[in-house]
Amino acid sequence: MGLDVGSVLSKMNISSASDHTSVVSMNLFVALLCTCIVIGHLLEENRWMNESITALAIGLCTGIVILLTSGGKSSHVLVFSEDLFFIYLLPPIIFNAGFQVKKKQFFRNFMTIMLFGAIGTLISFGIISFGAINIFKKMNIGSLEIGDYLAIGAIFSATDSVCTLQVLNQDETPLLYSLVFGEGVVNDATSVVLFNAIQSFDLTHINSSIALQFVGNFLYLFIASTLLGAAAGLLSAYIIKKLYFGRHSTDREVALMILMAYLSYMLAELFYLSGILTVFFCGIVMSHYTWHNVTESSRITTKHAFATLSFVAEIFIFLYVGMDALDIEKWRFVSDSPGTSVGVSSILLGLILIGRAAFVFPLSFLSNLTKKSPYDKIELKQQVTIWWAGLMRGAVSMALAYNQFTRSGHTQLRGNAIMITSTITVVLFSTGVRHFSVLVVVWVLWDVCMVRRTGP
Amino acid sequence: MGLDVGSVLSKMNISSASDHTSVVSMNLFVALLCTCIVIGHLLEENRWMNESITALAIGLCTGIVILLTSGGKSSHVLVFSEDLFFIYLLPPIIFNAGFQVKKKQFFRNFMTIMLFGAIGTLISFGIISFGAINIFKKMNIGSLEIGDYLAIGAIFSATDSVCTLQVLNQDETPLLYSLVFGEGVVNDATSVVLFNAIQSFDLTHINSSIALQFVGNFLYLFIASTLLGAAAGLLSAYIIKKLYFGRHSTDREVALMILMAYLSYMLAELFYLSGILTVFFCGIVMSHYTWHNVTESSRITTKHAFATLSFVAEIFIFLYVGMDALDIEKWRFVSDSPGTSVGVSSILLGLILIGRAAFVFPLSFLSNLTKKSPYDKIELKQQVTIWWAGLMRGAVSMALAYNQFTRSGHTQLRGNAIMITSTITVVLFSTGVRHFSVLVVVWVLWDVCMVRRTGP
Repeated sequence: MGLDVGSVLSKMNISSASDHTSVVSMNLFVALLCTCIVIGHLLEENRWMNESITALAIGLCTGIVILLTSGGKSSHVLVFSEDLFFIYLLPPIIFNAGFQVKKKQFFRNFMTIMLFGAIGTLISFGIISFGAINIFKKMNIGSLEIGDYLAIGAIFSATDSVCTLQVLNQDETPLLYSLVFGEGVVNDATSVVLFNAIQSFDLTHINSSIALQFVGNFLYLFIASTLLGAAAGLLSAYIIKKLYFGRHSTDREVALMILMAYLSYMLAELFYLSGILTVFFCGIVMSHYTWHNVTESSRITTKHAFATLSFVAEIFIFLYVGMDALDIEKWRFVSDSPGTSVGVSSILLGLILIGRAAFVFPLSFLSNLTKKSPYDKIELKQQVTIWWAGLMRGAVSMALAYNQFTRSGHTQLRGNAIMITSTITVVLFSTGVRHFSVLVVVWVLWDVCMVRRTGP
Repeated sequence: MGLDVGSVLSKMNISSASDHTSVVSMNLFVALLCTCIVIGHLLEENRWMNESITALAIGLCTGIVILLTSGGKSSHVLVFSEDLFFIYLLPPIIFNAGFQVKKKQFFRNFMTIMLFGAIGTLISFGIISFGAINIFKKMNIGSLEIGDYLAIGAIFSATDSVCTLQVLNQDETPLLYSLVFGEGVVNDATSVVLFNAIQSFDLTHINSSIALQFVGNFLYLFIASTLLGAAAGLLSAYIIKKLYFGRHSTDREVALMILMAYLSYMLAELFYLSGILTVFFCGIVMSHYTWHNVTESSRITTKHAFATLSFVAEIFIFLYVGMDALDIEKWRFVSDSPGTSVGVSSILLGLILIGRAAFVFPLSFLSNLTKKSPYDKIELKQQVTIWWAGLMRGAVSMALAYNQFTRSGHTQLRGNAIMITSTITVVLFSTGVRHFSVLVVVWVLWDVCMVRRTGP
């Protein structure tokens, strides 16, 4: 075969040193992933821990070790790549969420989800951007343009579905799960429209025609993305049913399902649609139609293979966020003025809290007006959980912040460096600390519900 | 969620154009993969076609279309990357081969496999290198160094296991399958030793101590790689049995198996061992121990998930080889002297034929001397098939040729360009044309065996 001839040959070339470094970091990363799974499993009995928090903690520890061994020069093992995140890690997570979602619950709350995802995100975006413009301009944090402030609004009004999936349990709290997760998915379409709007419209003079265009854009994006996902799912079902009828081949079926799902995501990206929305609906349609046309072993394989892919991708993201949080380059600027950085992070956290409260409670009230059955209404305690659970900012916020505030992995400007470190602080705080509190809230709420339902 | 914000934001940056180009080529590639599976399935009844040949043909057609639409400038869609091939595509194929191999048959023929893989490859390497040095030096094909000639010997004496897996059927011809495929795996360790030897020893003065060192190196590499693979497999079995006992979690088990297998491959690369040998034995040990310690659904999932991964990786390779074969840059030099290129390709094919014949028939004779049962002996017809089936040069040869004769994807020197195009010619010829003839030989042979066994 001569496989290793490749690596041996490459050692003759100039690129030898960097090649072997990447092999070393791949080894480290895969070994850490295994460790996370094993430790996450050992801590399974403990309700306060799971693989994500383990991965975050292990990532942080590894970052510290690398920082110390490299003499404080670097904690980088892999350079953060948006492509890696958006093209490889995110699609399986969202697809699997669509594939395993409880469809009945999801579609029953569809209007509320749309309300939260579309109107709610706009309200939150407005409040955070407005707050950032007014507060940060008075602070000494370097040069930021109007586009940067609006980007801050968009970055921090985007709910992190990946985190949400980790904290809320579909079986224990189906209503909360479908509301918060569904909001996160619809949210994506809103964000795309928002950014298009920032680019193309003059936002200082908003009039009714621009608002109409905005609504039209959103509807087009939402409908087109959904239809594309549904079409990909239906096409896969048709192909598998028509062609493979009577003479099933498991490997081909599974390969075709994975490839078609991935194709739908990439097509959405190609046409500037929302890939998340598309692959989510593709997952729903595939679990409803395609899955019932394949062999029994294909069913078991796809169900577990998709879950495994999503599981590994999630751990990968958290491990990475933990490892990257200590990158020395970003913190260099902050060390000159630690007070400013703490201030910015606190203000951002405060703005997120206010922005989210400003739409969850009023919109829940509106939603409750339309529901007749008391079981469909969103109680105050549940509203608090929705508010609190959706506060988490994770890998998606990180990726967006990197995109907006860095140029090819480096942060030169002071303002940008502070924004990156503040994002990391918010992400670590919200994932690490808030994770526990959400668990407490959900747990108490669930116990209350159980007592009331089984009580006298 | 704001996923697409990433892509929208990136469109603001300078890198916008290249980003969208890569999305377009990803779309094209995934769509072509789907097409290959569907067409390959439709042609399933036809014994002469399979997914690989379909992928090769579709790749060639796509290459032509791109060449025509780009006005003859380029047929590149994805730039060939060895990393992609050696780090992502090859490991799942070899691991799956180990996972699904018939262990009894494999270990019964172990000595013959070792003989073919170690001694045979050396004989073949010697003949091809010697022939290349003597013939090519007299031809006008530009400057090639002694290292280049030895590399040609190594590249073309490496059997392509991926092609072999496609042509030989484990159930129909178990003896041939295990011999040819096993040879390919052992072959890899030999190649690594060969290249180390080329680098570190003075080959013009071979004496007994250098030969001993050579044998010692080979044994070290073979034993270390095998032990590493077996250790990774056993460790995964131990972890899954000890930790997951009684409270099984399918996703974690599957994730751990995949990650451990991959880790073994990367560790072998890290320690300059043979990754192919390691991951092959890891597959054997995992299917023998780990697989029996997991839940029923994990068993079904891993069996089909590994097969699917390997299946998709194979199609990917053949599609790529087909698409890349028409890259205009490489053929530019050749068009000046088409006669030379045809000559070089023919000479290489001839040398491969001779080099392989020079060890298959003598070594089969030796192997037969040690066997007592007539059923274990390798008949002349089977020897012809082994000789013929192992002639195929595929993606591995391509990757090695690219590595040796190109610098970051470009071919500047005339001699190098001719070597690349000759490799492509040999690969296309051997995969396309010889594929059919091997099928004929195997088919006739199988019929003969069947008739003899079931006959009077």
